[in-house]
Amino acid sequence: MAGPKKTSPVAIVMGSDSDLEVMQSCIDQLKEFGIEPTVRILSAHRTPDAAGDFARKAAENGIQVIIAAAGMAAHLAGVLAGQTPLPIVGVPLAAKEGLLGLDALLSMVQMPPGVPVATMAIGRAGAKNAAIFAVQILALKDNKLSERLAAFRKSQTEKVLAKDAQLNC
Amino acid sequence: MAGPKKTSPVAIVMGSDSDLEVMQSCIDQLKEFGIEPTVRILSAHRTPDAAGDFARKAAENGIQVIIAAAGMAAHLAGVLAGQTPLPIVGVPLAAKEGLLGLDALLSMVQMPPGVPVATMAIGRAGAKNAAIFAVQILALKDNKLSERLAAFRKSQTEKVLAKDAQLNC
Amino acid sequence: MAGPKKTSPVAIVMGSDSDLEVMQSCIDQLKEFGIEPTVRILSAHRTPDAAGDFARKAAENGIQVIIAAAGMAAHLAGVLAGQTPLPIVGVPLAAKEGLLGLDALLSMVQMPPGVPVATMAIGRAGAKNAAIFAVQILALKDNKLSERLAAFRKSQTEKVLAKDAQLNC
Amino acid sequence: MAGPKKTSPVAIVMGSDSDLEVMQSCIDQLKEFGIEPTVRILSAHRTPDAAGDFARKAAENGIQVIIAAAGMAAHLAGVLAGQTPLPIVGVPLAAKEGLLGLDALLSMVQMPPGVPVATMAIGRAGAKNAAIFAVQILALKDNKLSERLAAFRKSQTEKVLAKDAQLNC
Amino acid sequence: MAGPKKTSPVAIVMGSDSDLEVMQSCIDQLKEFGIEPTVRILSAHRTPDAAGDFARKAAENGIQVIIAAAGMAAHLAGVLAGQTPLPIVGVPLAAKEGLLGLDALLSMVQMPPGVPVATMAIGRAGAKNAAIFAVQILALKDNKLSERLAAFRKSQTEKVLAKDAQLNC
Amino acid sequence: MAGPKKTSPVAIVMGSDSDLEVMQSCIDQLKEFGIEPTVRILSAHRTPDAAGDFARKAAENGIQVIIAAAGMAAHLAGVLAGQTPLPIVGVPLAAKEGLLGLDALLSMVQMPPGVPVATMAIGRAGAKNAAIFAVQILALKDNKLSERLAAFRKSQTEKVLAKDAQLNC
Amino acid sequence: MAGPKKTSPVAIVMGSDSDLEVMQSCIDQLKEFGIEPTVRILSAHRTPDAAGDFARKAAENGIQVIIAAAGMAAHLAGVLAGQTPLPIVGVPLAAKEGLLGLDALLSMVQMPPGVPVATMAIGRAGAKNAAIFAVQILALKDNKLSERLAAFRKSQTEKVLAKDAQLNC
Amino acid sequence: MAGPKKTSPVAIVMGSDSDLEVMQSCIDQLKEFGIEPTVRILSAHRTPDAAGDFARKAAENGIQVIIAAAGMAAHLAGVLAGQTPLPIVGVPLAAKEGLLGLDALLSMVQMPPGVPVATMAIGRAGAKNAAIFAVQILALKDNKLSERLAAFRKSQTEKVLAKDAQLNC
Repeated sequence: MAGPKKTSPVAIVMGSDSDLEVMQSCIDQLKEFGIEPTVRILSAHRTPDAAGDFARKAAENGIQVIIAAAGMAAHLAGVLAGQTPLPIVGVPLAAKEGLLGLDALLSMVQMPPGVPVATMAIGRAGAKNAAIFAVQILALKDNKLSERLAAFRKSQTEKVLAKDAQLNC
Repeated sequence: MAGPKKTSPVAIVMGSDSDLEVMQSCIDQLKEFGIEPTVRILSAHRTPDAAGDFARKAAENGIQVIIAAAGMAAHLAGVLAGQTPLPIVGVPLAAKEGLLGLDALLSMVQMPPGVPVATMAIGRAGAKNAAIFAVQILALKDNKLSERLAAFRKSQTEKVLAKDAQLNC
Repeated sequence: MAGPKKTSPVAIVMGSDSDLEVMQSCIDQLKEFGIEPTVRILSAHRTPDAAGDFARKAAENGIQVIIAAAGMAAHLAGVLAGQTPLPIVGVPLAAKEGLLGLDALLSMVQMPPGVPVATMAIGRAGAKNAAIFAVQILALKDNKLSERLAAFRKSQTEKVLAKDAQLNC
Repeated sequence: MAGPKKTSPVAIVMGSDSDLEVMQSCIDQLKEFGIEPTVRILSAHRTPDAAGDFARKAAENGIQVIIAAAGMAAHLAGVLAGQTPLPIVGVPLAAKEGLLGLDALLSMVQMPPGVPVATMAIGRAGAKNAAIFAVQILALKDNKLSERLAAFRKSQTEKVLAKDAQLNC
Repeated sequence: MAGPKKTSPVAIVMGSDSDLEVMQSCIDQLKEFGIEPTVRILSAHRTPDAAGDFARKAAENGIQVIIAAAGMAAHLAGVLAGQTPLPIVGVPLAAKEGLLGLDALLSMVQMPPGVPVATMAIGRAGAKNAAIFAVQILALKDNKLSERLAAFRKSQTEKVLAKDAQLNC
Repeated sequence: MAGPKKTSPVAIVMGSDSDLEVMQSCIDQLKEFGIEPTVRILSAHRTPDAAGDFARKAAENGIQVIIAAAGMAAHLAGVLAGQTPLPIVGVPLAAKEGLLGLDALLSMVQMPPGVPVATMAIGRAGAKNAAIFAVQILALKDNKLSERLAAFRKSQTEKVLAKDAQLNC
Repeated sequence: MAGPKKTSPVAIVMGSDSDLEVMQSCIDQLKEFGIEPTVRILSAHRTPDAAGDFARKAAENGIQVIIAAAGMAAHLAGVLAGQTPLPIVGVPLAAKEGLLGLDALLSMVQMPPGVPVATMAIGRAGAKNAAIFAVQILALKDNKLSERLAAFRKSQTEKVLAKDAQLNC
Repeated sequence: MAGPKKTSPVAIVMGSDSDLEVMQSCIDQLKEFGIEPTVRILSAHRTPDAAGDFARKAAENGIQVIIAAAGMAAHLAGVLAGQTPLPIVGVPLAAKEGLLGLDALLSMVQMPPGVPVATMAIGRAGAKNAAIFAVQILALKDNKLSERLAAFRKSQTEKVLAKDAQLNC
């Protein structure tokens, strides 16, 4: 299972397959950078052993950055962070019912001293930014990725400038 | 270690020994009911294995109710709930810095469907109520405890009535 | 009225029949565990006598756990808790207008010392979890229920693992 | 007990004697208007019968307005409102621990349709304003009180004007 | 203008005619009690003179209770309260954009000491309760209204009991 | 680019062209006052150089007031304020996902001492008010604009009075 | 009274003399720019006539910008804005009890369309920034003030650079 | 200036020297890992040019991770993120006045898509975790650091276990 993906440097872990819709933008963004992420459905509460197992073996499986997305009392990112020294990037999600994602945000970002979770914005913006942030980390030791990142940043600057120009022509 | 306490029906688990000050009111309240609780310092993030181990063995060690207290992104109660079918009672704590315990409250109470945490009020009120709630559960099959609970409730009613009478005499 | 249900160990009380839609998941979950709950519409404010009467007689009517659901200034759970030593499980609901259920959550969870309400998540997640939590309490003295709970937990673990496997096959 | 106070048109009910410190400004303000209030310690949760009894008999005991003050999950005002047709004025209090009184505010003000609680500001400002609001109600049929209210309002206007003049002289 | 309504004991004032949709439940509830309210569109900011004029003359025009509804930074109730000794009942409304009515709630309820606004729940629940609360005030000196209020309360109790009975038959 | 607009005294800057829909009411309101604003798409994060360049040259390009609108972590207004002594008026916007604009509001209004941003309400109300506020500033030295402002204020007063009259005729 | 101050271009209005302590930083900052502000204690609720009178005559008395500071349900800025076309700058203050100034912030910033209040940060930061913002407005037509503003901005930049240099020497 | 520090892989940037007290725990934690960080005082608003300059040259100066701490409307992290492809770790701080750091948290974490800021908890916990997270990034390509990180994690686990053992001996 997930055999060839073992070699991916980035894993995306979600607490539920219903999170996949929002996290697709994270997957797509990573693919744009040429990274095919490992994608896992693992729950901090319903599959704690599998989640712990995944985290403990992540480094030896070649994963370098773990992106964890969850809603409500979003413990997944913190639980993974307790089981691996790899950097964990958290994406808080807004559940259909509830507090617009504020619950997930506070459950992720307010980690006690010793075990950080690098938290992104709620929802799609955070999902996309988690991908970019993972690339920013990996680009520190990967020149090709660093160039793609520079190109991405240049391109997004140009898109805004183009819209500005279009508005004022 | 903690040998004779293994037989206690109630365990109190805290994320940090700095939580002991607030949770003392929980311990004291249980003792008032004749229950000497098992008290543990276990962190969902810093000692995940010990925490999981504790939860998985709790039932066979005679524990029937687990009270879990933590502050900030308070994952402890949820993490224990994922590893044991025993009822988990959560006490959200206010950290010295931060959001008055609102972060801990949302991190505990907003558990996703499938793995409940019975959440109490923030801080001392919740600490005391967790003890009473554990007793309410145990009293369902323990007549002596049930009588003590009735006496406690009668006594707290009388205390309010006495203060009211005193004010109006 | 409600004659044969008197023997149910779990009662679900709602402040309004409009809450039934959300609480159906609580009823269904209890039925999955083989428990046919007593379901009552009782308001802390509009039928205080009937609510008090229900709570005071609950224990002698064989009820062991009361699940109380309400929205807005959700006093129902607390009011029942003041009239019975039975464990009360609260489900805060989001009203159509208003503060997404944050008002109901705080009105339930922030109980003053002495009278606990075991509060669940806002809305459907909490409704389902209230059922599971009631079963966790009852399972402490009911081996059959304890086995069903273990099976339920195993099943929900397997569902997540299956979705994870499906994603990665 | 409370014999001669039975004839007071205003009752102040508190959930705990620890609320007396803040509510003293309510008592004092009423006395300034020549009203000696009935003051009671009654808890919605710890003395529900006494609280209900008080509310049901309030009208026949000559009470016309009830001021109810409580903190945390402040159910007292709503519970009294369910037992009497008299106008209930609520004062949300900030507990020592907790959410600055926001919990008490939402627990009071967000009453469901049918049973209103007239909610004042959190803490001392609300305590004082509850007294003034009770007087505004009573002044509708009491010319002497109406004159005192007019004098009070004139005096508070003059105090501000005097401070303004002092600053600018 | 508004000639025959001058004699109504209750005035409803709204900041905008777009508030009329929500406040219709307030008007309807008052009519159920036999009170035809004066209804005015007056803005604290856009028609301050007319609003002040209305408030200053309200008592002499026979108004006894003023219900003020507004959204966003809801100053209307407080501004009227500064110009009349009559009791002011505030209904905070949720604007289409914005903070679900939390802004309006805090803008109304957090009145500084000296000038109270009796605040109701956000939106329709508050609109209906404002009508009932006005009736509770007026019923203090109007036996007929007092009887209608008792009947209303009895009827709403019976409706809940009927729904409960229906569920359990 | 944007040649003839250089002479406009008011510039509207948006972080994204998706903000244009809400900000159209700002543009329209300015046009009603006879001001054709310069409209720019500039991002504090994606086009920091263009944004800084715009702000540094704004005064010499004849701009006197800058209106900056952004959502989420809305840094645009503050970033412009750091690069120009011109008054900056901020309009916080609610993103599709997220916290109803509360994030943008706090990101704009809570500027540290030394660099103010004059913050308006969230969304359309703020967009329209930003235009009016810019006119209030410009009217201090432009009699024609001052007269238009007086006419606008008179007209909006009359509209409310007309609706009030219509309701009561 | 306030004779020679009539000619000041900036007025600071506070709801209570207890606000003076925080607003002193506003006064001091204006004096640093060579502006001696008119300072008034005027309450939207306790002295509505004096407040309205002040606002209506402000322009003819030479005032060009009004800074209004208030706490709790902070209506002062909005009420003044309804009575004058001059730009109003609002400073929300945190009351001793209460919601940290969030109530005052929302009461000021969430002004409905048509009557803007330019809102600053809560407390001292906002008090200081209100002064700077007033100067930014006045500097648009006052070269001397414009120069002082430039010098102030340069100086505050240099202070940060000096602290940075000191840290790194 | 800052000569020998140019070669540090981690820079800590603060908006004000008053932030140094809280950020000392970040500096100390990095030193524990053998990293002497570059520490800078740079303001997004008061020294935008120096801040931009720092960010643009950070990579070529050997910096690999930037930790940015700020309070209130905390734009610093986002502004730096707009000027460098390096990973930015944000630490939201609670200002003396204000909203407990919730303003800074939302200003940092809610970054729009395209420019991520990896946000930590509010205050000291976040300051310490920012250091650890920077080390987690650097450890991906530095075996010595990776070993120190493993030792740190083991040590903090042992500290909790020791406290637990001590409590139960």
